Amino acid sequence: MPFLNDVWYAAAWADEVADGALLARTIAGQPLVFFRAASGALTCLLDRCPHRFAPLSRGKLTDHGIRCGYHGLEFSGSGECVTNPHGPIARALRVRSYPVTERHNMVWVWLSEQDPSRAQIPDLSFVTETPPTAFSKGYMHGAANHLLLVDNILDLSHADYLHPETLGGGSVTRTRAQVEERPGSIFVAWHSPNEIPLPIWRPHLPDGHERCDMWTEVEWFPCGVMLLRAGAAPVGQAPEQGFDTMNAHIMTPESSATTHYFYCNSRNYLVADAEYNARMAVGLRYAFECEDKPMIEAQQQRAGEIDLLEQHPALLSVDVASTKARRMFERLLSSEARTN
Amino acid sequence: MPFLNDVWYAAAWADEVADGALLARTIAGQPLVFFRAASGALTCLLDRCPHRFAPLSRGKLTDHGIRCGYHGLEFSGSGECVTNPHGPIARALRVRSYPVTERHNMVWVWLSEQDPSRAQIPDLSFVTETPPTAFSKGYMHGAANHLLLVDNILDLSHADYLHPETLGGGSVTRTRAQVEERPGSIFVAWHSPNEIPLPIWRPHLPDGHERCDMWTEVEWFPCGVMLLRAGAAPVGQAPEQGFDTMNAHIMTPESSATTHYFYCNSRNYLVADAEYNARMAVGLRYAFECEDKPMIEAQQQRAGEIDLLEQHPALLSVDVASTKARRMFERLLSSEARTN
Amino acid sequence: MPFLNDVWYAAAWADEVADGALLARTIAGQPLVFFRAASGALTCLLDRCPHRFAPLSRGKLTDHGIRCGYHGLEFSGSGECVTNPHGPIARALRVRSYPVTERHNMVWVWLSEQDPSRAQIPDLSFVTETPPTAFSKGYMHGAANHLLLVDNILDLSHADYLHPETLGGGSVTRTRAQVEERPGSIFVAWHSPNEIPLPIWRPHLPDGHERCDMWTEVEWFPCGVMLLRAGAAPVGQAPEQGFDTMNAHIMTPESSATTHYFYCNSRNYLVADAEYNARMAVGLRYAFECEDKPMIEAQQQRAGEIDLLEQHPALLSVDVASTKARRMFERLLSSEARTN
Repeated sequence: MPFLNDVWYAAAWADEVADGALLARTIAGQPLVFFRAASGALTCLLDRCPHRFAPLSRGKLTDHGIRCGYHGLEFSGSGECVTNPHGPIARALRVRSYPVTERHNMVWVWLSEQDPSRAQIPDLSFVTETPPTAFSKGYMHGAANHLLLVDNILDLSHADYLHPETLGGGSVTRTRAQVEERPGSIFVAWHSPNEIPLPIWRPHLPDGHERCDMWTEVEWFPCGVMLLRAGAAPVGQAPEQGFDTMNAHIMTPESSATTHYFYCNSRNYLVADAEYNARMAVGLRYAFECEDKPMIEAQQQRAGEIDLLEQHPALLSVDVASTKARRMFERLLSSEARTN
Repeated sequence: MPFLNDVWYAAAWADEVADGALLARTIAGQPLVFFRAASGALTCLLDRCPHRFAPLSRGKLTDHGIRCGYHGLEFSGSGECVTNPHGPIARALRVRSYPVTERHNMVWVWLSEQDPSRAQIPDLSFVTETPPTAFSKGYMHGAANHLLLVDNILDLSHADYLHPETLGGGSVTRTRAQVEERPGSIFVAWHSPNEIPLPIWRPHLPDGHERCDMWTEVEWFPCGVMLLRAGAAPVGQAPEQGFDTMNAHIMTPESSATTHYFYCNSRNYLVADAEYNARMAVGLRYAFECEDKPMIEAQQQRAGEIDLLEQHPALLSVDVASTKARRMFERLLSSEARTN
Repeated sequence: MPFLNDVWYAAAWADEVADGALLARTIAGQPLVFFRAASGALTCLLDRCPHRFAPLSRGKLTDHGIRCGYHGLEFSGSGECVTNPHGPIARALRVRSYPVTERHNMVWVWLSEQDPSRAQIPDLSFVTETPPTAFSKGYMHGAANHLLLVDNILDLSHADYLHPETLGGGSVTRTRAQVEERPGSIFVAWHSPNEIPLPIWRPHLPDGHERCDMWTEVEWFPCGVMLLRAGAAPVGQAPEQGFDTMNAHIMTPESSATTHYFYCNSRNYLVADAEYNARMAVGLRYAFECEDKPMIEAQQQRAGEIDLLEQHPALLSVDVASTKARRMFERLLSSEARTN
């Protein structure tokens, strides 16, 4: 199962690449090392010294870049060898450097030889615009193909069965999804007027509001960036008068069978309540790590090494969005194969 | 190494499929889920939802069958979809159901498409006829091909070397095995008049009985059901006046390199002695888990992925029974290949 | 990646094959068992009973050899079956026996069918000539191809980066290696007059000796035996007036991806200081297990299953010795392929 190349991959939360840190992370099969150079420049190099293949991430940051911990070759942030303690600097003494940028509190890397300037990073500006007491984030490693994790969010009816005490409740199942193919993304929405609110919201509704109007909207951008908005308002009132949350779920392939999963949550209610924020963070972490992850990893084990969709699963109405996303993914792969 | 199809496989001790339980177990490469339906009917389904391949064993029992824990599809015990919360029930929404029966305190499953009605489950009626204080049973997972575990019991001379302080003592080695090919089974017997009794029996013999008449008989039924009778009587007396034990050793393949091993033991002496019974259970568990299992797993590692018998081991007289069993197994495999 | 055959492999420190012990160790892909027979003769047999492939190392020593723990076949040190409790001793009942010898406190084994008498074991006589208070030794298992471990010692410039606080210090990097191809070995020397002494030696130099003359010499003998001499003397004085150490580093392949690593150290200073000796042993163990081993295992992971040198790494001047050693290794492999 090949990977997309001409995309910005979310590689890390920005604070994972702290000053002085060397973060080793494999993205789409490429072993990479991320660090901030002495100049402050965010840097990504192939995590493999060209001399003896030692991981540079086992080396040390220097004033001029990074020094291999095995025999002392030093490379600048552009991958040029700047010091060879053992002799002249031959042309072969260079390591591949990757375009890398920091946006929305995340580190993004570009693996392709193509020009990245025309490629878009999806707008996650809510990440930096939310006060810390209304925001939480996490990272999870998953032993499943990244597309199985994407499928999971494009069909949120799963929440009614996998997270019935927290994020489920039946409303998504009872609501027909509206799926829209947009240029460069797939959008799916569940608009549920006069519905039973999600369990996590029930304690916070005004008395007498046993039902409310709810909305859930997901947009998927290849490769693996997903925006999820969900909220509820008293029946008949404008959304602005209700609860609203904006979330990101980002699935970056590590290998064809493993995935880096980044998630975050922001909200417009109890915005200054740090204690509620902490409880919400724990609850989401529990749902993702203890409910989603084991189910999807078990699904991967049952599917084995052959892509699930090639094994003729029975498709339901709830699979429309994920099927469209996989088709778009395949078209992008084919298009890259023709270009490269 | 293929598996037999047209046989009843012992899948579990009956109490492993308790009311309300979902038992996930792979038999001969098939991932299965066993449960007792609300109606009480013992049920076995393929443990893979046809929708997204989630294991049904991660779901929940319902009044009508089992509900997938991922998106809520509900299947009856016959594998029909009875609820699709997301739309109509298409024909593809069914999961394979397997004939399953409970006999001799075990759950048996039939994996083949053939009619099971003419196939026999070997008679293990001693299992339900023995009082609890004279009976013990166990389950062990083994990292070895099931036929290596069968070989082990068809050549009980191994007890003289692997279990010298408990089940050995030299008498089996000193006795010529009588091997008999029967319709549908292989039978092997060691009849040892005037022999040194097994170490486990010595403390219980009347004074002055340093020697006794002993018998050990094993019958193997494909696939993997083995009956083992062993006993001892004072020299010259009838067997009824001595110790007699009836045992089952059942090797059900999980994969070509792993095996479910079920064993049980019953006896006709100290029948009401619960304390002795508990000590015997511990002793047998020790012999099987700490002596047999490591040796056979090591043997599997030395043999590797190629069947041991294809690697031209040196055969001894003690291998007659296991060789006949493997030939019968091969004939059954060939016969199934022609039929199916 | 094939192994050399016509060499004496270092298999164990002599004390690993204690009286009464059965040492199971795989050398160059062959599972072997080492023991001392009742006669005292050091013995090596294939660790696989010809009957059912049980490891003989799970058996017991006897007066006449070793008895298989599974069915009691007994083999002499020459691999002949001397007891078959189950019948006559057929010709097939033999296990391969390997020439084995004890020298320099190590057990050496010969895997080839060729005559070993003309093959040399490198001279490690310092091992038995050093008093115990000036000697230490160790064993380490490494998850890397043996040649990567050889490369490590043939290019000691790595010490300046991987062991900067103990064995490094920059002098090897600043010194041009003299590499010499000898009949049957590769020799490399770093002679460093008027240099900064190694960190481990600094506390022991007389006052006012901020610099000294240093020497480091390594000789590699296939397969995997390396002698390492390193020392330092006050500037302009004869080596005899300084510190001198003799070391062995021995890399015996277990499989193509794992290696048995034996090392030892002797010295000519503080010869009676047991406390210093113990500290030195801990320090070396730390350097090898906590600095070398993780780096080389990481290098192996980056290289994967293809030999590093076939992946066109950038070679430096410091790689001259290891390149010559690998060429000699390849020539020996080719020569064996023609002969055998």
